[in-house]
Formats: sequence, C-alpha cells, structure tokens
Amino acid sequence: MSSGDIIRTKLTENAVRVDAFINELLKPRRPEILYEASRHLVMAGGKRLRPYLTVKSCEIVGGKPQDAIPYSAGLEILHNFTLVHDDVMDNDKVRRGTSTVHTKYGIPIAICAGDLLFAKVYEAFTIHAPHGINAKKIRSCVEAATRATIELCEGQTLDLSFPDTAFVSEEDYFLMIGGKTSALFRACAEVGAIVGGGSKRQVNALGKFAYDAGISFQIVDDILGLTANENTLGKPVGSDLREGKKTLIIIYALKHAKGRQKKILETVLGNKNGKKEDIEEAIQVLQYLGAIDYASKKADRYLIQAKKQLDRFPDSAAKRDLDELIDYFTKRIY
Amino acid sequence: MSSGDIIRTKLTENAVRVDAFINELLKPRRPEILYEASRHLVMAGGKRLRPYLTVKSCEIVGGKPQDAIPYSAGLEILHNFTLVHDDVMDNDKVRRGTSTVHTKYGIPIAICAGDLLFAKVYEAFTIHAPHGINAKKIRSCVEAATRATIELCEGQTLDLSFPDTAFVSEEDYFLMIGGKTSALFRACAEVGAIVGGGSKRQVNALGKFAYDAGISFQIVDDILGLTANENTLGKPVGSDLREGKKTLIIIYALKHAKGRQKKILETVLGNKNGKKEDIEEAIQVLQYLGAIDYASKKADRYLIQAKKQLDRFPDSAAKRDLDELIDYFTKRIY
Repeated sequence: MSSGDIIRTKLTENAVRVDAFINELLKPRRPEILYEASRHLVMAGGKRLRPYLTVKSCEIVGGKPQDAIPYSAGLEILHNFTLVHDDVMDNDKVRRGTSTVHTKYGIPIAICAGDLLFAKVYEAFTIHAPHGINAKKIRSCVEAATRATIELCEGQTLDLSFPDTAFVSEEDYFLMIGGKTSALFRACAEVGAIVGGGSKRQVNALGKFAYDAGISFQIVDDILGLTANENTLGKPVGSDLREGKKTLIIIYALKHAKGRQKKILETVLGNKNGKKEDIEEAIQVLQYLGAIDYASKKADRYLIQAKKQLDRFPDSAAKRDLDELIDYFTKRIY
Repeated sequence: MSSGDIIRTKLTENAVRVDAFINELLKPRRPEILYEASRHLVMAGGKRLRPYLTVKSCEIVGGKPQDAIPYSAGLEILHNFTLVHDDVMDNDKVRRGTSTVHTKYGIPIAICAGDLLFAKVYEAFTIHAPHGINAKKIRSCVEAATRATIELCEGQTLDLSFPDTAFVSEEDYFLMIGGKTSALFRACAEVGAIVGGGSKRQVNALGKFAYDAGISFQIVDDILGLTANENTLGKPVGSDLREGKKTLIIIYALKHAKGRQKKILETVLGNKNGKKEDIEEAIQVLQYLGAIDYASKKADRYLIQAKKQLDRFPDSAAKRDLDELIDYFTKRIY
C-alpha cells in the first residue's frame, strides 16, 4: 500500500465510528424535512479529516479515542453547518457530487438546517459527553468551538468582500483563511487534547500545530486548483480564476505583474466565461512571475512551523498518525 | 403610576444593565460590517422581556441578579439571532421600526451576522461567566439554551410549512408556538434558576411556568392582531389574515365555519391585497363563530397553569415581579 492508501484506510476506519454517532445525533424528528435537509450534506460523504485530527489529538496526550467521538462528530457537524450556509451565501449549486441543501430544499429550510446543525454541535458536546468527561473539560471544549465559529464568521465575511476589493493585502488573505480554515482545525486539535486530559501547554501546542497546518492546507488547495488535473480536482482547472478568487497566488501576481502580464490576468479573473486558452496563458504568467512558487514556499514554511509544535511530543503512534495526516493534506499524496 | 408603568420601569432598569453587557460582547472587530450588521437589530430596541425573566428566575431561587446578566444577555442575543434569520426566510422588510438586517446589509451578511450572534450566546455563557458560576452550572445552561434552539428551528420549519398546509391541526399549532416562542421562554427561566443555584425541582417548575406563559403570550398576540388598534399594534389590524397565518383563531374558525362564513374567511386569508371591509367582515365571522373567545379561554387556561407553578415558591419580591411580568405580557396592560 502507498502511504496515501494507508492514511485513507485509517481515515475511513475513524469515519465509520464518527458517522455512526452523527447518524444517531441527527435522528429524524418532526418536522421531517428539517432533519432530512440537515442530514443531506453531512451524509453525502467527506474525508472526515477534522474528526481524525480531533481523535488523534486526544490520543497523543494519552486520552481514550472513544471519549473524543462525540466531540469529533460535533466538530464535523460544525464544519458542515458552515458549508450549508456558505453555499446559500455563494449560491453554489453542487458540493460533494450532490446538490447543495438550498438547491434541493430552498433557502429558508437551508438556513434553518444550518442553524439546527450548529445547535447540534453543543448537544454533542454536553448532553452526549462520555461519563469520564467532566464539566470543566466540557466548558473548555465549548469555548474552543465557539471561538472558532466566531473566526469562521469573520473569515467568511472577509471572503465575501474580496471580489469587490481591487487590492487584497497578503495580511487580509491570511486573516481570511485563518478564519475560514485554520480556526476550526485549531479547535479540533484543542478539543481533542482537552478531552484527552492534556495540559494547557499541550492543548496550545496542538492548537498551533493544527492552525498552521490549516494555513498550509489552504495554500496547497489554491495551488492544486491551478496545477492538478481535472479528475483529481473534481472541478475544471482554473475555476478559482474564473470566480475571481483572491488566492495568495493571485495576490502576489497582481502585485508583481506589469503591462501585458497584467492584461492577461485581468482577462480571466472573475470572467465566468473565460476561454480555456486564456486560462492556460494566465497560468503560464503566474508561473513566470514565480507566484505559484512563492505560494508553494509559504505552504512549506507553515508546514515546517506546524511540525515544530509536534516535535514537542514524545514519539507515539498518535504522533506518527498526526504527522502522516498533515503530510497527506498539505501534499495530497494520491 | 399604573401597573403597566411600574413593570415598564422595572424592565427598563434591567435592560440598561443587559444592554451594557451586550454592547461589550458585540464590540466591533474586523471585519466591521459583520459587527455592524450583528448589532443592528439588537441595538434597535426591544422590551427585553426575556432577560428580565432570566434575572427574576435567578432571584426567586435566591441568586444574585448580577450573576444572571451575561446569561440574560446571551438569551436576548439568541432571540435576536433567530429574528435575523427568520426575517431572511420570511423576507420581512421592517422590524422594530427599522429595516431588517438583510434589507440593509444583504442576505449573505445577514446569515453570517445571525451565525455570529448564535456563537456569541455561548461566548457569553462560558468566557464571560461570573466568578461564582462553576462549570457544572455552565454545562446545564448550555444544555438548556441548546435544547431551546433545536426546538426553535423545529418550530420555525413548521411555521414555514403552514401556508402550504390546508388544514393545520391544533396539535401542530401548539407544537409550532411551543418551538417558536415557549422553548426560549423556558430556557430563560431555567438558565436563570440554574445560575441562581436552584434545585432541579425549582429549575423544572420555573421552566414549565415560563413555557406555559409563553403559550399564553403567543395566543394573546394573535388575538391582539385582530382586536387591538393599529397604533398599539404597530402594524395594520388583520395583517395575520392577509399573510394567511394559521393562528389558533383561524384553525378553530376554519374547522367550524360553514357556507358563506367559510367564503368570507377564504376571501381574506393569504390575500395580500385584502380590502379593509372584507377584513372587518372576516373578524365579525371569527367573533360570531366564537373563535376569538375560544382562543382567549385557551390563553387564560395556560396562564392559570403557569401561575400554579409559581405558587410552589414562597412569597418574595422576585415572585411578585414574575407574576406581574406574565400579567403584563399575557394581558398587555398598557
């Protein structure tokens, strides 16, 4: 088996237990349509990276993985709640190969379903807390998830403003992905470590580890959107350019492009009907300017920074699993 | 001073402390527009009935009112979060005499602002917990607020389905208002009592008290929508009829109306351009059928049931305040 196969097997094994809990937590009640809509996206799949991160962060500090299951499931639901609402805001039609919640059930039910999912996070954290998890730990977990959600809302609002912002600064880009991606990664690691009985220092170290890994993950995602092939991506190459997304690559390129280069980029950026040849030419410009290389180096730097936090922990199976996880999701070993 | 003046003064005094906390909790951060949008509705006013209910439920079990302030503020924010999202779902343009959040800031920001407000509830409950409130109490408060939010989502979804449902049963009506109104009232009383150190029995009694008072409150609201004058209501008399709202009055009337009566009702129900004469005639039919009287008796029954729970507590200033509060909001002494 390749290292990609191994981590995928581990993710699947963990996902089975997490999904069983989610299935129970979202057991249909009246009105059925609300629960159907709430289950639609989360049951449509997903790699369950976040629950795995939570469970492994519990194990690395000496906790029992089963104690982390309700929390890891809650955090996956938190992730899905933001996706349901984001899809309404961005009016996206397809996710995980199926129609988005509002496309299938309408906007009002999708908003309600997102709200229900958000509430279910806290139900998972409190009412379903395993016997050994005391109220103090629960309080800390609620705080970590809540802080992440606040940053998620801030990140999403920044992201909403980017298309109308001619010059997005690198600082704002990092603030945006910090909120949209890293904050929840951090919460997953923190919550896992809290549940597992980690010290304050351990909780913080794992939180920083996951935050930086999340940044690296997001930059790699942006790079793959330009360099991977369509089958691997599940969407056309250059979609980000057509949508006018302000990725680190674009921010760097717009700062350094001159004359004809700038024109080539402006032809495709935010142009929903951008031609394939124009997209290819724009990607060449991005390469020529060193923008992809720049982003790639930044991603590496965050990955190294993340691994430094992991170095604080003695060797263990969970440590190796976390190391393997971030290699997987920042390098995408397929 | 009339009894209406007295209770209004007490509500205002409490609101000042609650609003100071809310103002601090929603202190602007980047991105500013998110915080502006989140503050828009909650800062536009409101009687702060729910915070008052929370604080008084804390006092009646012997707790310090100041301990309940972060919780009462959190529950008011929870109420406002649902209003912001409901206004998007119902596409309402005006609330509390000002434009709704999505009318002013657009739907995406309004959804995000609602989500932020919901997260802030839990921030208020945990990070801002006063010193004397231990983790066990915090856990119980989180559980109570979460349970209410789940029922709120269920109630809102039912409400969304009513216009397309020809025959809404009385049972479904009570399920709907139980979720949309009473669940949060119950949470306010429970959270106040938990913070104040009440016994399980006291927490439950106050929860039931507030739940039934909430039902009575909602039925009275529906009655006033047909019988009060326009200035008191702040909206045209009969708006509920024009919107086709399935109130207890309408449900009863549709069940008992025959021939011409039915026709008169059907002429106005859900007819946005219903004429004033037709509305007046429909209200006469409702009176003739005894529908308003029926609803009024139901409201009284729930009020009596609520007061029975309050009777379990020995006399105190807080008890008298709670008694006065529900008289105020179920009879609307102006």
